[in-house]
Amino acid sequence: MVRADGRNDDELRQIRITRGYQDWPAGSVLVEFGRTRVLCAASVTEGVPRWRAGSGLGWVTAEYAMLPSATHSRSDRESVKGRIGGRTHEISRLVGRSLRACIDLAALGENTIVVDCDVIQADGGTRTAAITGGYVALADAVTWLGAAGRLNDPRPLSCSVAAVSVGVVDGRVRLDLPYEEDSRAEVDMNVVATDAGTLIEVQGTGEGATFARSTLDKMLDVALAGCLELTRLQQEALSAPYPGTLPEARK
Amino acid sequence: MVRADGRNDDELRQIRITRGYQDWPAGSVLVEFGRTRVLCAASVTEGVPRWRAGSGLGWVTAEYAMLPSATHSRSDRESVKGRIGGRTHEISRLVGRSLRACIDLAALGENTIVVDCDVIQADGGTRTAAITGGYVALADAVTWLGAAGRLNDPRPLSCSVAAVSVGVVDGRVRLDLPYEEDSRAEVDMNVVATDAGTLIEVQGTGEGATFARSTLDKMLDVALAGCLELTRLQQEALSAPYPGTLPEARK
Amino acid sequence: MVRADGRNDDELRQIRITRGYQDWPAGSVLVEFGRTRVLCAASVTEGVPRWRAGSGLGWVTAEYAMLPSATHSRSDRESVKGRIGGRTHEISRLVGRSLRACIDLAALGENTIVVDCDVIQADGGTRTAAITGGYVALADAVTWLGAAGRLNDPRPLSCSVAAVSVGVVDGRVRLDLPYEEDSRAEVDMNVVATDAGTLIEVQGTGEGATFARSTLDKMLDVALAGCLELTRLQQEALSAPYPGTLPEARK
Amino acid sequence: MVRADGRNDDELRQIRITRGYQDWPAGSVLVEFGRTRVLCAASVTEGVPRWRAGSGLGWVTAEYAMLPSATHSRSDRESVKGRIGGRTHEISRLVGRSLRACIDLAALGENTIVVDCDVIQADGGTRTAAITGGYVALADAVTWLGAAGRLNDPRPLSCSVAAVSVGVVDGRVRLDLPYEEDSRAEVDMNVVATDAGTLIEVQGTGEGATFARSTLDKMLDVALAGCLELTRLQQEALSAPYPGTLPEARK
Amino acid sequence: MVRADGRNDDELRQIRITRGYQDWPAGSVLVEFGRTRVLCAASVTEGVPRWRAGSGLGWVTAEYAMLPSATHSRSDRESVKGRIGGRTHEISRLVGRSLRACIDLAALGENTIVVDCDVIQADGGTRTAAITGGYVALADAVTWLGAAGRLNDPRPLSCSVAAVSVGVVDGRVRLDLPYEEDSRAEVDMNVVATDAGTLIEVQGTGEGATFARSTLDKMLDVALAGCLELTRLQQEALSAPYPGTLPEARK
Amino acid sequence: MVRADGRNDDELRQIRITRGYQDWPAGSVLVEFGRTRVLCAASVTEGVPRWRAGSGLGWVTAEYAMLPSATHSRSDRESVKGRIGGRTHEISRLVGRSLRACIDLAALGENTIVVDCDVIQADGGTRTAAITGGYVALADAVTWLGAAGRLNDPRPLSCSVAAVSVGVVDGRVRLDLPYEEDSRAEVDMNVVATDAGTLIEVQGTGEGATFARSTLDKMLDVALAGCLELTRLQQEALSAPYPGTLPEARK
Repeated sequence: MVRADGRNDDELRQIRITRGYQDWPAGSVLVEFGRTRVLCAASVTEGVPRWRAGSGLGWVTAEYAMLPSATHSRSDRESVKGRIGGRTHEISRLVGRSLRACIDLAALGENTIVVDCDVIQADGGTRTAAITGGYVALADAVTWLGAAGRLNDPRPLSCSVAAVSVGVVDGRVRLDLPYEEDSRAEVDMNVVATDAGTLIEVQGTGEGATFARSTLDKMLDVALAGCLELTRLQQEALSAPYPGTLPEARK
Repeated sequence: MVRADGRNDDELRQIRITRGYQDWPAGSVLVEFGRTRVLCAASVTEGVPRWRAGSGLGWVTAEYAMLPSATHSRSDRESVKGRIGGRTHEISRLVGRSLRACIDLAALGENTIVVDCDVIQADGGTRTAAITGGYVALADAVTWLGAAGRLNDPRPLSCSVAAVSVGVVDGRVRLDLPYEEDSRAEVDMNVVATDAGTLIEVQGTGEGATFARSTLDKMLDVALAGCLELTRLQQEALSAPYPGTLPEARK
Repeated sequence: MVRADGRNDDELRQIRITRGYQDWPAGSVLVEFGRTRVLCAASVTEGVPRWRAGSGLGWVTAEYAMLPSATHSRSDRESVKGRIGGRTHEISRLVGRSLRACIDLAALGENTIVVDCDVIQADGGTRTAAITGGYVALADAVTWLGAAGRLNDPRPLSCSVAAVSVGVVDGRVRLDLPYEEDSRAEVDMNVVATDAGTLIEVQGTGEGATFARSTLDKMLDVALAGCLELTRLQQEALSAPYPGTLPEARK
Repeated sequence: MVRADGRNDDELRQIRITRGYQDWPAGSVLVEFGRTRVLCAASVTEGVPRWRAGSGLGWVTAEYAMLPSATHSRSDRESVKGRIGGRTHEISRLVGRSLRACIDLAALGENTIVVDCDVIQADGGTRTAAITGGYVALADAVTWLGAAGRLNDPRPLSCSVAAVSVGVVDGRVRLDLPYEEDSRAEVDMNVVATDAGTLIEVQGTGEGATFARSTLDKMLDVALAGCLELTRLQQEALSAPYPGTLPEARK
Repeated sequence: MVRADGRNDDELRQIRITRGYQDWPAGSVLVEFGRTRVLCAASVTEGVPRWRAGSGLGWVTAEYAMLPSATHSRSDRESVKGRIGGRTHEISRLVGRSLRACIDLAALGENTIVVDCDVIQADGGTRTAAITGGYVALADAVTWLGAAGRLNDPRPLSCSVAAVSVGVVDGRVRLDLPYEEDSRAEVDMNVVATDAGTLIEVQGTGEGATFARSTLDKMLDVALAGCLELTRLQQEALSAPYPGTLPEARK
Repeated sequence: MVRADGRNDDELRQIRITRGYQDWPAGSVLVEFGRTRVLCAASVTEGVPRWRAGSGLGWVTAEYAMLPSATHSRSDRESVKGRIGGRTHEISRLVGRSLRACIDLAALGENTIVVDCDVIQADGGTRTAAITGGYVALADAVTWLGAAGRLNDPRPLSCSVAAVSVGVVDGRVRLDLPYEEDSRAEVDMNVVATDAGTLIEVQGTGEGATFARSTLDKMLDVALAGCLELTRLQQEALSAPYPGTLPEARK
C-alpha cells in the first residue's frame, strides 16, 4: 500500500517556512506542510488583559481561523454566521496552550502576544502547521520585544515547540496526513513536542473505531521523530537574521 | 504525600450511578464522582438532522453545560452571554465522539439520541463523569427504542464506554483528580476506553510544564485500570431492570 | 369531575423542600411541587452592579432556566440558540421582583445575591415553585451573610414569599395545576403573596377565553389559602439549622 | 392631593385615536394617551408560520418596540445591542395574547396579522395604549381581509379589547398613570378587558411594597370603568369608514 | 414620458419640515419628501464616547432605521433578527458623516449628539430625507446647547447640509425619485451638499447598467439645484423660534 | 510637494496580479497595489439562493474581510466579536454590486459565484484592489464554468471592471492613495469603471471638509485614467492560459 504522494509512512510532506511574510506584525510566518498553507502572525501589544493586569506576567494567546476559500468546497464565514464554531474554538485553545508551554510569562513582562493563525489553504494538518509556524512567529516577536528593551529577562523562551499529525490509514501508522488520508483515517492523533523530545500535548481519537494501547505507542514513536525533524527545520529558518527592521530600545 | 481525601494514588473517588433520575427522557442518569454530580439525559427523537436524512443511519450527539451554581464561585450563564464558550464546545464534542464510538448507527436506524450532560455540582472530572454516566443513559435509551420496535438491529451497542482523568500532582501520577488537585496538576490527561480495554480518546496536556514519554506511559496504565473499574460499576448499575415504563412495540 | 391525581380542587400537590442540595452556594434548595422539581441556588457576591455602586444598597436578582431534558419532549438549549426566549426573560423578572419585595436592600448592604432557578423536571407551576423555593434559598443566603458579619442590619427580610398557580379547568377553579391541567386551562393565574396574606404579584390570563370578575375573586380566595399553606411548609423547612458550615464573622 | 395634570383619580388622560396614519399596512392607527403616542400597524400576510401550516387556523401576533428618542433620556436601540430586552419581550407577548383573545382564528383562515406597536413618545402606559390602539388597527385589517374575500367567516372578531393602567400613588388608587406617577407608584396594575366587561388579563405588582386584597378590588373597579370608556372611544373611531382604499374581492 | 405624479424631471416632491415633533429630544423634526416620512431626533448627552474622552472635542453620530410597517410589504425587525443589515449600517454611516461635515466639534465641546432617523413611511429617498431633516434637528439641538451655556463657541455650525437623490429613469435624468421610479432606475445617485453649493458626498451607482461621464455631469447639475431648494426650505423652517422650552444657562 | 514614495500625482503604485494563488477555488488571484495585498477567490456553487431559485438567473456576490494581522496595529476578529462591522458590510456590498455590473446573470445560468476578498496586508485602497483583483478571479471562474459546460451562453461577461481611489492630499489631487496619504486626505473618492470608460460607481466623500464641483471633475479625470491603466494590466494577466486544470464538460 503506497501513499498517494509516494512518501514513506514515517515521512513528512515538503515543509517550507517563510519568515517576514507581512510587514506590520512583529512576527509573520507563512508555513507550508505540502499544500497546507497557514499564515502565522504574532502581534505585540503593550499591557495584558484586565484579569491579568498588575501581575507582572505577560500573556500569549492564539486565534485560529480558515479563509472561506481555503477548503475544497467553500465554507461559510464565521463572522457572517455570527458565531465561532466548536472546531475553531478548540484549535485556537490548543495552539495557545502549546505556545504558552515554551515561554516564561514573567520574563515576557506585561506584554501581550496574539498569534493569529489564518489558514490560506487547507489540506490536512492545519492545526499542527499552525503550532509549528506559530512558534517561529512567536520567536520573531520575542526578538522584536528584546530589541525594543521591553522584556524583563532577555531569554523568555525555554524550549521550542513543533507539532505533527499521525494516524492509522489502511491499517498502517502514517505521519503527517493530507486531507485525502485524514478523511478516512481510523485513528487520528496530534502530538505537540519540544526540542528536548518531551511532550506538551497528545490528542488521539478513534474515528468510528477504537485502538489498542500498542497502536498508540507506535504512533507516538513516529510522531516524536517527525517533531524532531520539524524542530530542525525551525532552527534552520530561525538561523537567518530577523526579517525586517528591529526597533531601537527605549531608554 | 497523602491525598487530601485519603485515597491511594490509583484509586477512584466514590462513584454512584442513579438511573431513572428524571421521568421524561428515555434514559436519565445522575452520576457522581465524589462531589462531582452530572445529570446525563438521553432523549430520543424520530428522524435525523437534515444533512443525514435518507442515509438509513441514526445519530448520537451530546451537549455539555454547567449550572451557574455548580462551581465554587458562581459562573455566568452562557445563554445570557449569548454564546457558548470554547471549553463547553470542546467537551460537548468530546462526549459525543466518545459515545458514537460504541454504537452502530446503521443498527440504530433513523433515530436521533441527544445526550444532555448538565453539571449539577463541579469538583473536577466533569467531562469524564459525563461520558461515564452518558453511556448508561444511552444504554437505557437504546433499551427504550428496542422495546418500541424502532431499532434496525436489536443490539446496536458494540462495546461500553467509560472515562477517567489522571494527572501528575506533587510529582506523583494520580487517578480521578478533584478540583483541588486538578487546579495545580503539572500534567492532566483524560482517557476514554472500552470494556475491551481499547482506547477511544486520549488527551494529555502539560499545564505550564512538559512531560516525558515515560510519564505518559505510567498515566495510561493507571487510567486504563480506572476505566476497567468504572466499567464494572456501569455493568452493575445496568444489571437492574429499566427504571420506568417501557413503550410497547409499534406494529 | 375528579382530578387525575385524586386531589381536591383546592389542594396543593405534595410539596418537598430540601435545603443544602449543593455544596458551594450560600443557599441551595431543591423544591418539588409533585413531579415539578426546581433547583434554587442563592449565590452571594461582594459588591453590586455598576449602576448601583456607592448607593449603600444591595441587590437581589434571579435567573430562571430549564434543562433541555426537563420537558416532556426535549427543548433546545437557549445557550445554543444564542438568545434567551421571551418566556424565560419574563419568569426571571417575575422571580426577581417577587424576592426583592421581601428584603430591605439597605439592610443587605452592598452585596449581590443571584438566585438561580433551574428546572430539573417540569410538570406545571415551575415559576411558582421557583419563587417558593427561591425564598428559602434566599433566607439561607441571608443567614450566611449574617454569620459572616456582612449585613448592615441583622434582619433584612421583612416578610416571607410564596407563590402558587390557580386556574379554571373543566369549568372549576383549581389550585396548583400540573401540566396536564395547565395545558387545557381556560384561565390561568399566578399569585405571589406574603406570610401576612398581602399580595406581591397577581397575573391572570384568559387562554383563548375571557373571564368574569367573580371568577377572578374565587381564584384569589383559593390561591391565597394555598400560599398560606406553602408559607407553613417554608417555615417548617427553615426551622432546621443551616445545612452546612457557616463562615466566621470578619473582624 | 391633586394630580399634576388636574385630573380626577378615576379619569383617563385625553385619548386620541387616528386611523389610516400610514399608507401601506391594512390597519394603521396612532393612539395617544395624553403625551404617550404609539403607532399601531396591522400588516396582513398570506399564510401562517410553519408550525401552524395546514391547520386551517390563522395567526395574530404583536411586536412592541420603542424609538430611542421616545424616552425622557435617549435609550439604546435593541437592534444595535443585538438582543431584545426582557421588558420588550414581555410586552410583545402581552399585546399578542390580548388581541388573540378577541378573534376567532378559524374564521380568520390561514392569514397572519402582525400588529407592530412602535412607541413614538413614552409618558407611561405605553403597553395599555398599544393594546387599545392595536385593537383598532386589527379591526381595520380584518375589514381589509373581508373586502378581499379572504376570511373563512365574515365576522372573526368576537369582542373588542381595551386596556388601561391603574396604580396606588400617594396612597390613592389612580387611573391611567403618566410617567411621573408611574415611577413612584407603590402598586401598579394593568387590566385588559372586553366590551362585555369580562377580563382578558390582570397584572398587578407591588413595587417595593405589598398590597391588600381590598386594594386590588378597588383597583379593578376603577380599571374596568376606564376600559369601558376606552371601548366607547374605540367604537366612535371605528364608526367612520375604512380610511383608505379597500381591495376588491378575489374571485 | 411624464412622471406618474405629474412633476417635471428636475422638480422635488412636496417637502414638509415639522419641528418639535416630539417633546423630549433637544431637536425633533418630522421631514416629508412626498409620501416618505422620516422622524429625525437629535438627543444630547453630556460627555463623549470613551475613545474620544479628554480630547476637548464633541461627537455627532447618527442611527438610521425603518419601522417594520414603513415599507410596502412589512419588513422584519432588525432587533428581532439580532443583527443590523448592511444597508442600515451603510446609511447610518452616511448620515453621520454628512452631519459631521457641517459642525466644528471643538466648538461643540465634550457633548455628544445622536441623530436618530426613524423612517415612519418609505417611498424612496429615505436617506436623503434623513440627512435633510437631520440637519434641522441638529440645528435645534445646537440651539438648545447654546441656551444651556454648554458650547465652547456660540456658533459651531459652519454650513447647512441638504441631500437629494437623482437618477436615470426611462432614459431621463430625474430628481428625487419615489419608490416606483427608484426601483427601476438605471442609475441612482445621492448628493449631499452645503448651502454654499459645495459637495460633502456623492454616491452614484449603475444598477445593472453603466453610465457615461456626461450623464454623471447632468445628474450633478440637477441634484445641486435640488439641494439649493432644500436649503431654502430648511432656512424657512428654522426661521421660526425654537419649538419648545429652552433650558436656562448653567452658571 | 513630492509624494513619500516618489510617484507622480497621477501615477498608480506598483500593481501585481497573480492568478492561481490557491488550488481549490475556480478563480484565485492575489492582487497587490504597492504594499496592499488582497486575496480574491471566486468559488462556484451549483444553484442559487432560495429567493432566486427557478428564475433561470445566476448570482454573483462578494464578501470582504481583513485578517487581524493585516493592519498597522492588530484589529479584532469580526467572528470573535460576533458581528460584522458597518465598514465591512459596506465594502462587501460595493464589491458585489461592481462585479454584477459586468456579467449577464441569464447567461451565467443558475450558478452562484462568491468572490471572497480577504485582505492579507492593508496599506490603503483595499476596496479598489478587491474589485480590480475580484474581476480577474471572476473571469477565471467563468472560464472554468464554460469548460464545464455549465453556462447558458458562452460569453456572460459584457465588460471588464477596475477600480481606483483618488483624493485631495496637501491640496493636490492624487491617485491611488496609500494609508499614509489616505489618513490625512481632505477628500476621498473611489471610482469603479469599465474597459469602455463608462462608470459603474462613484463614491466621493469630504473628510471633515467639503469640496467644489471642479475638484470632483478633476478627480474623475485622474481616476478614469487610472482605471484604464488597471484594465490594461488585467488584460495582460488574463492573456496567459487558465492557471490550473479545467474540468471536462458534462455531457
